[in-house]
Amino acid sequence: MEKTQVVIIGAGPAGLLLGQLLHNQGIETIILERKTPEYVLGRIRAGILENGARELINEAGAGKRMESEGLVHHGVMLAYDGHSHRIDFKSLVSSSVMVYGQTEVTRDLMDKRKESAAPSVYEAEDVTIDQYQGNKAVVSYHKGGKEHIIECDFIAGCDGFHGVSRRTVSEYVKEYERVYPFGWLGLMVDQPPVYDELIYSNSPRGFALCSQRSLTRSRYYIQVPLTDHVEDWTDEAFYDELRRRIPQSLSDKLKTGPSLEKSIAPLRSFVAEPLRFDRLFLAGDAGHIVPPTGAKGLNLAASDVRYLSHALIEFYTEKSTAGIDHYSQKALARIWKAERFSWATTMMLHRFPDYSAFDQRMQRTEYDYLVSSQSAQTVFAENYTGLAF
Amino acid sequence: MEKTQVVIIGAGPAGLLLGQLLHNQGIETIILERKTPEYVLGRIRAGILENGARELINEAGAGKRMESEGLVHHGVMLAYDGHSHRIDFKSLVSSSVMVYGQTEVTRDLMDKRKESAAPSVYEAEDVTIDQYQGNKAVVSYHKGGKEHIIECDFIAGCDGFHGVSRRTVSEYVKEYERVYPFGWLGLMVDQPPVYDELIYSNSPRGFALCSQRSLTRSRYYIQVPLTDHVEDWTDEAFYDELRRRIPQSLSDKLKTGPSLEKSIAPLRSFVAEPLRFDRLFLAGDAGHIVPPTGAKGLNLAASDVRYLSHALIEFYTEKSTAGIDHYSQKALARIWKAERFSWATTMMLHRFPDYSAFDQRMQRTEYDYLVSSQSAQTVFAENYTGLAF
Repeated sequence: MEKTQVVIIGAGPAGLLLGQLLHNQGIETIILERKTPEYVLGRIRAGILENGARELINEAGAGKRMESEGLVHHGVMLAYDGHSHRIDFKSLVSSSVMVYGQTEVTRDLMDKRKESAAPSVYEAEDVTIDQYQGNKAVVSYHKGGKEHIIECDFIAGCDGFHGVSRRTVSEYVKEYERVYPFGWLGLMVDQPPVYDELIYSNSPRGFALCSQRSLTRSRYYIQVPLTDHVEDWTDEAFYDELRRRIPQSLSDKLKTGPSLEKSIAPLRSFVAEPLRFDRLFLAGDAGHIVPPTGAKGLNLAASDVRYLSHALIEFYTEKSTAGIDHYSQKALARIWKAERFSWATTMMLHRFPDYSAFDQRMQRTEYDYLVSSQSAQTVFAENYTGLAF
Repeated sequence: MEKTQVVIIGAGPAGLLLGQLLHNQGIETIILERKTPEYVLGRIRAGILENGARELINEAGAGKRMESEGLVHHGVMLAYDGHSHRIDFKSLVSSSVMVYGQTEVTRDLMDKRKESAAPSVYEAEDVTIDQYQGNKAVVSYHKGGKEHIIECDFIAGCDGFHGVSRRTVSEYVKEYERVYPFGWLGLMVDQPPVYDELIYSNSPRGFALCSQRSLTRSRYYIQVPLTDHVEDWTDEAFYDELRRRIPQSLSDKLKTGPSLEKSIAPLRSFVAEPLRFDRLFLAGDAGHIVPPTGAKGLNLAASDVRYLSHALIEFYTEKSTAGIDHYSQKALARIWKAERFSWATTMMLHRFPDYSAFDQRMQRTEYDYLVSSQSAQTVFAENYTGLAF
């Protein structure tokens, strides 16, 4: 039987970031992860950090490489049927975002964790939440053919959408969900991005996104039917389709090359309520999923971790339960607003197979109004760069 | 065979306003109306004027009573499940709207038309557009058992959604439409309004609107299923239901009385494209319908008339066809944005029978975000008070 203060389930960015913030305040944690570090790092995810997430990574002490290699973007390009318009974050809301891949954030946090010598258990099998109510919490797992049991004060469920944490309390969870009738086919390539900033484009052939991870690594996406298989898409077919969906002035400049990775992801909106169950807290994808259109997935995980780390630090340093008592409500208020933005941008930028002519023109008018109204652009910018905490 | 410059079909506010603006510039018009003046004045419609509509009525010389009796509103109240928030037009966009009933606008314009001695034919039967292409336009009608034929330069179709004008060109019209799964049951009563400004309220029992026509005349609405019949709603049942749908602090103050009028109207979004067919122009409800939630119906009619009157005046005074050539495109750009706002406010404020739990929370979050964000409120205010021309 081991003991610690907080068991963190999941060594993705949410769990690692929480672990580091707690460790820095002298709070003991054990991180349990079902997979290997290499597997975790192999997941290709988002690449856009709100300043709030960036601040938190710096607060954790893991921001050095991010600050030197990350690219600050002061705007984003929105296109519709060949027309394009830049949303200028700097002039609208005096803010920006940072391009820095989730994989890199995770790597930096892993390095920091190693440096701190706080315990992490990778390849922990059959992680089970045995107790989360009463005077303590208990988590067990198997490793090396042996069962391990940990007694702790709290459990942070940072183990993603399919993890054990939410499943353990599923009978007490209210779930809200919307599944979209298409997926994103993504391709990563070591070529300079087609444009300095991100381009979100709605075209008659569907959505496309020109994203990037660095000045030499591009990440491109196209909307595809859910029935498509990634094996059926050659790199060449992907690039051809991408070119048809972005303004011509850009497609002419597209630099192609062999894909480093190519995969299809479904689009889902999902929220679980509440996010606290006595001594168990859900954070990040364990509690909510956004479609990637608004680039909010990692940022919401960071925002949960901000609230949860403050709550736990308050508990240990001031003996106050106020923070943990309000965690669910505070986190959810921000989550729902990010869900709203992610849903609204998804609705504005994709082609929906069941749209009537009226629906299609309403969507186009959303774009036309947005690019004609400074206040509508301010709404977009304040959401994209991140709402207040 | 009579001759004139412009035949205006329909003596509602659009036709009368256009007639007056053209008359003031020495352009000859004949207005043809299928119904009697009393019938036209008996139609109960909107009561909120954007400053752009107000200006145009003043420009027509019909604004004297409006300016003395109309009420200037600097804001509107939005409520959701008992929570309420005021949108402050004055501080957000330095603007306002005017409460002055469409019936009164029509009456003032009718009086002005009579004063000007320009010809209006009421109870014109079988109005037919015989020709709208080539070197002239021709309109015929029956009255007093005789056929009358008018040759003219242009025809302005201001004869509403069910009129002959759009029907005449139906094979060349592209129609966009959305029908909403509920109606508005409206009640007019001679009692002071429950509140100084309008209250739009979304409640678990459905939408309610507390509107007004003057300091002593109130207009109230509640969302009802399309299967409801007005005969089944007593005044008392209406007031009871209204009270349940607005914040308690207001429902306690509701002053009731016998209804002057009570009716159910369906909610529809509709746009016809284009709005010009050679010598025939569509304006107002003949070309588009909005659900009443955004108070845009009369205001859009006025905005069409602004573009069309300028275009025709330009044609007669400067021999330029630029205005009439661009009428359709210019008018539609503003129409679609008003359609967008009317659709968005309808979506935010009503209960939809087929909503999932996620949809319902998205709607609630639209409200929560709106009342928390100054820029989102600016978007609402700039649309409600009227976008630029």
